Amino acid sequence: MIMQTAFFKLANVIPVDEALAYLKDQIQNLFGKKSQKIVDMNFAAVDKTLENLVEIDYPQTWAEAADSSRAGKDEPDFVRNVMRPMLTQQGDKLPVSAFTPDGIFPVGTTRYEKRGVAINVPEWIMDNCIQCNQCAMVCPHATIRPVLLTEEELGNAPEGFEAKKSVGKDLKDYYFRIQVDTLDCYGCGNCADICPAKKKALVMKPLETQSEKQIPLWRYFEDLPVRDNLVGRNTVKGSQFCQPLLEFSGACAGCGETPYAKLITQLFGERMLIGNATGCSSIWGGSAPAIPYCVNKDGFGPTWGNSLFEDSAEFTYGMLLGIFQQRNKLADLMRQALGTDVSQEIKDAMSGWLDNMKDAEGSRKYGDRLKALLPAQKDNALLAEIAEKSKLFTKKSFWIFAGDGAAYDIGYGGVDHVLATNEDINMLIMDTEVYSNTGGQSSKATPTGSVARFAASGKKTPKKDMGRISMSYGYIYVASVSMGANKQQLMKALVEAEAYDGPSLIIAYCPCINQGILAGMGKAQEEEKLAVQSGYWPLYRYNPALKAEGKNPFILDSKEPDGSLKKFLEGEIRYASLKRTFPEEAERLHTTLVDQFTKRYEELAHMADPTLVCKQEEPVE
Amino acid sequence: MIMQTAFFKLANVIPVDEALAYLKDQIQNLFGKKSQKIVDMNFAAVDKTLENLVEIDYPQTWAEAADSSRAGKDEPDFVRNVMRPMLTQQGDKLPVSAFTPDGIFPVGTTRYEKRGVAINVPEWIMDNCIQCNQCAMVCPHATIRPVLLTEEELGNAPEGFEAKKSVGKDLKDYYFRIQVDTLDCYGCGNCADICPAKKKALVMKPLETQSEKQIPLWRYFEDLPVRDNLVGRNTVKGSQFCQPLLEFSGACAGCGETPYAKLITQLFGERMLIGNATGCSSIWGGSAPAIPYCVNKDGFGPTWGNSLFEDSAEFTYGMLLGIFQQRNKLADLMRQALGTDVSQEIKDAMSGWLDNMKDAEGSRKYGDRLKALLPAQKDNALLAEIAEKSKLFTKKSFWIFAGDGAAYDIGYGGVDHVLATNEDINMLIMDTEVYSNTGGQSSKATPTGSVARFAASGKKTPKKDMGRISMSYGYIYVASVSMGANKQQLMKALVEAEAYDGPSLIIAYCPCINQGILAGMGKAQEEEKLAVQSGYWPLYRYNPALKAEGKNPFILDSKEPDGSLKKFLEGEIRYASLKRTFPEEAERLHTTLVDQFTKRYEELAHMADPTLVCKQEEPVE
Repeated sequence: MIMQTAFFKLANVIPVDEALAYLKDQIQNLFGKKSQKIVDMNFAAVDKTLENLVEIDYPQTWAEAADSSRAGKDEPDFVRNVMRPMLTQQGDKLPVSAFTPDGIFPVGTTRYEKRGVAINVPEWIMDNCIQCNQCAMVCPHATIRPVLLTEEELGNAPEGFEAKKSVGKDLKDYYFRIQVDTLDCYGCGNCADICPAKKKALVMKPLETQSEKQIPLWRYFEDLPVRDNLVGRNTVKGSQFCQPLLEFSGACAGCGETPYAKLITQLFGERMLIGNATGCSSIWGGSAPAIPYCVNKDGFGPTWGNSLFEDSAEFTYGMLLGIFQQRNKLADLMRQALGTDVSQEIKDAMSGWLDNMKDAEGSRKYGDRLKALLPAQKDNALLAEIAEKSKLFTKKSFWIFAGDGAAYDIGYGGVDHVLATNEDINMLIMDTEVYSNTGGQSSKATPTGSVARFAASGKKTPKKDMGRISMSYGYIYVASVSMGANKQQLMKALVEAEAYDGPSLIIAYCPCINQGILAGMGKAQEEEKLAVQSGYWPLYRYNPALKAEGKNPFILDSKEPDGSLKKFLEGEIRYASLKRTFPEEAERLHTTLVDQFTKRYEELAHMADPTLVCKQEEPVE
Repeated sequence: MIMQTAFFKLANVIPVDEALAYLKDQIQNLFGKKSQKIVDMNFAAVDKTLENLVEIDYPQTWAEAADSSRAGKDEPDFVRNVMRPMLTQQGDKLPVSAFTPDGIFPVGTTRYEKRGVAINVPEWIMDNCIQCNQCAMVCPHATIRPVLLTEEELGNAPEGFEAKKSVGKDLKDYYFRIQVDTLDCYGCGNCADICPAKKKALVMKPLETQSEKQIPLWRYFEDLPVRDNLVGRNTVKGSQFCQPLLEFSGACAGCGETPYAKLITQLFGERMLIGNATGCSSIWGGSAPAIPYCVNKDGFGPTWGNSLFEDSAEFTYGMLLGIFQQRNKLADLMRQALGTDVSQEIKDAMSGWLDNMKDAEGSRKYGDRLKALLPAQKDNALLAEIAEKSKLFTKKSFWIFAGDGAAYDIGYGGVDHVLATNEDINMLIMDTEVYSNTGGQSSKATPTGSVARFAASGKKTPKKDMGRISMSYGYIYVASVSMGANKQQLMKALVEAEAYDGPSLIIAYCPCINQGILAGMGKAQEEEKLAVQSGYWPLYRYNPALKAEGKNPFILDSKEPDGSLKKFLEGEIRYASLKRTFPEEAERLHTTLVDQFTKRYEELAHMADPTLVCKQEEPVE
């Protein structure tokens, strides 16, 4: 609106007063349904633009300005020769010879973009920090990192690279620091918002006050070793010392999806294969030319592919079948080798591997032994063949990544079929409750009374309950999670799901710009907490493995709703706007929604404790 | 085996003893997995063939024999000119001009086939009959019909057309008879088997003892009026006085599917639209050249279409949208007419129709009035346009027909999406628990421990619970039915489902030759009863409309399993054969199945009465 106002003032194509009247009509039409506050803010933006328009006398040299600062000296050829031209809209001018014959684009290239789009970025206040690492976990762009360094590394650090003694007995020899990557940060502020320290250890500051100081510190950080083996990887804190193998994507500031995906790469990334459904996650996950998925120092990272909207489950299942086949062949070769004249050391390693091939840690351990022993045996053709397949030593982790449109609707037939196979495959649904990437259409995940495209007067039918549908199979691990509400529960769910020798489904609540959170996307994590407290989103885990122990497989992880559900709805435009457009329908649908979610909690509570009698279904008279 | 034995004996291509040894080896291989009894029976068949081979001295005239008896004199042109040649494998010789330019095949043409394939057909023993009409309901081929006739009609009847006084006060002026259509009967014997009379009113007799007598009686029956308005259509007895609009299909003898489909046409046929998934039901429902779906005396019958395996739900939904659009246009025209100068009588009829357009009986009643009034108004263009659309007056009934392969697996994505729309659409799943038509592959409806293609050592995962999955939506009517177990419950379910103003799902248990019922397909209805008594198949109805009345929407219609489940499994080759091929696995899987189904009953009982605490899920210690 500011730019349009300036344009009409300067261009003078129609009398400016008339033009601005049209503009204000348009503002009323566009935002009237959302809130009068938004209308008034836009009116004010138009008025203030006129008041504040000043002519800038820019130097003649600007006409020849070149964008040289962003390109690092040591950039790979691909970045210099392909990515940079594409990013500056010169991709059409690239000759065919600029691309590799196999069409492969290198991964981990978003790190060269250095967009610098944030207005404010977090500044770390060391003395306030309690070293919980939550800020790093919630960051959608992996731009805030905890680091453990030795005294020597601290001594060699550039000026300003402050660190404090680490807490925790396993870390007593190390120093701790939070390093911010100011140029890749989007400035959403979730890190500062969720900081639980008594006095905030992160404060949002204008980018220009931070970048100059932090850029060299980030470069020093990048060269430090990753110390991911000192604290348990499966803890909130420990997971954040692991390298995110998804970094600097182009997802929206405050995106609710990327923190889950990033966390999963920190837990399993070096042995993951991902089949991604079309949707936001296929855009932030792999839009040309820059790829945010990357590799660790050993060259391992997620294998990632995107096929169609409707087949991510089958596509991932195909990867699984392919790898299973190859690993079974590897097992055959080892069994064959055990019957030949090879050293006892090799035999022990192979037996160990065969016993543990379906266990991530065990297969890695014995695989590493073999990797150490086999290179000396080049003359043995069979052992050489086994050595050639060393990438298959560690058990792989298969993940279907999908939004709610693909999971609940378009790809659901395949999702159901693949989960029903009882194979060891995992699925993450990033549930924004709406078709986010295609423009905000209603999906079967959209709850009653939510406004969306195709549901302008509020969705009439309830949210499809993927969790309960999947639990009806009895052998699918199912969890409903919300990072901002309970990070420990999320960690348990991810670790249990991945470890479960069967299909797993993680349904993750994801705030999204399409939902219109009135507090802003900087409160995305807070919104995840409010959703759970109000009973809008339940937390639970259904672990079929518990049945074998004689335990109830269902564990309800969230408390009874606190009565704030209607207030929660008022905080999001997707619900609040209905009150303005269809007030009676809003009252009816939102009351229905509260009833549905209250009843859902009662039913879940009964599942968790069958001695509780469900209140909601009265017996037939 | 008999024919092969005869061939080897007569052809003498290899020494006959050697040939028969090979044959017996083959018998052992083919049937050894099923049962030793079957092997022995086949061995005996081979041996007895040799003993009983006699030379027949056939008359020379047989060489010129022609099949003239089947063609009736008054056959339609299509039957004479297209169908008969196709049925005698001469279809390739038909000129293009034999077909209509639009490619339409007439319906109701199976009645001209007169296959005469039964060995035994039922003979009606009038004095024993209690007039319950159950025999007619269970007949897979609509070849046994109850008829109500007047004294005059009885007087005019040909010899042998016996009838007795009807029971019931509404029928006191009529006579009752059961008429058998011997040439279209497949001889399964379910009618006689289920006859509940103290002394059986139906006895299976050799076809040649019956046909000569019954053929003229059937012809007389065909010309009698259909008296479908004397007994409630929605009762077991009354439904069978309604004309089946599905008759004489080529389904297997004893087919479990066709009795459900036929019954639905008796209840709603004249206003039904069916979208049929690929599967057995698309073959017995519409394989060229003969079509078993037919029309009533007014020319109304089911509109039937088959698209693909995977899209029957969407295909039917498309029909629904098309008809909705047309009927909404019709309503617009009526509202327009109400504002013009038309007679009060017409206005009353139109107002009545507009108030009742979504009600089957109401829309038919007012529609009939309009049909009587409008023809006199040809000069009024608006009324003429309304009259032209008179076929749309009666509310239509939309049905998705599918087997378990299409419903649980291949078409499930669409089934889920269409049922979730909350539109007024009905679905019948004919659940044979296996891909019947394509050769017996395992589907997600196949229970644990059942042997099928792709599940040679018994299916490992449980049967997918379509009922509970669909109930999780809260607004889908769901019923689980089994005709042979409880016909009243089935009637209630069909009537409630069709009347419910929203999506409905009927899951019908269907015996099938692929299941290998050891008692034979003549016991298909009995098997449906045993399935329910043993707890193999539950009966229930979930009617969301009851919620508005403050009632529990879920009603469990079957009793606690009687402990005969393992015995039930032993009665079907799909389970029993596993004991021979993989005895330990059979024990493990069948015990698992019993546990699953016991637990399922407990959970359903809890749903029906929430004050019952579920026993099966122990709380976490």
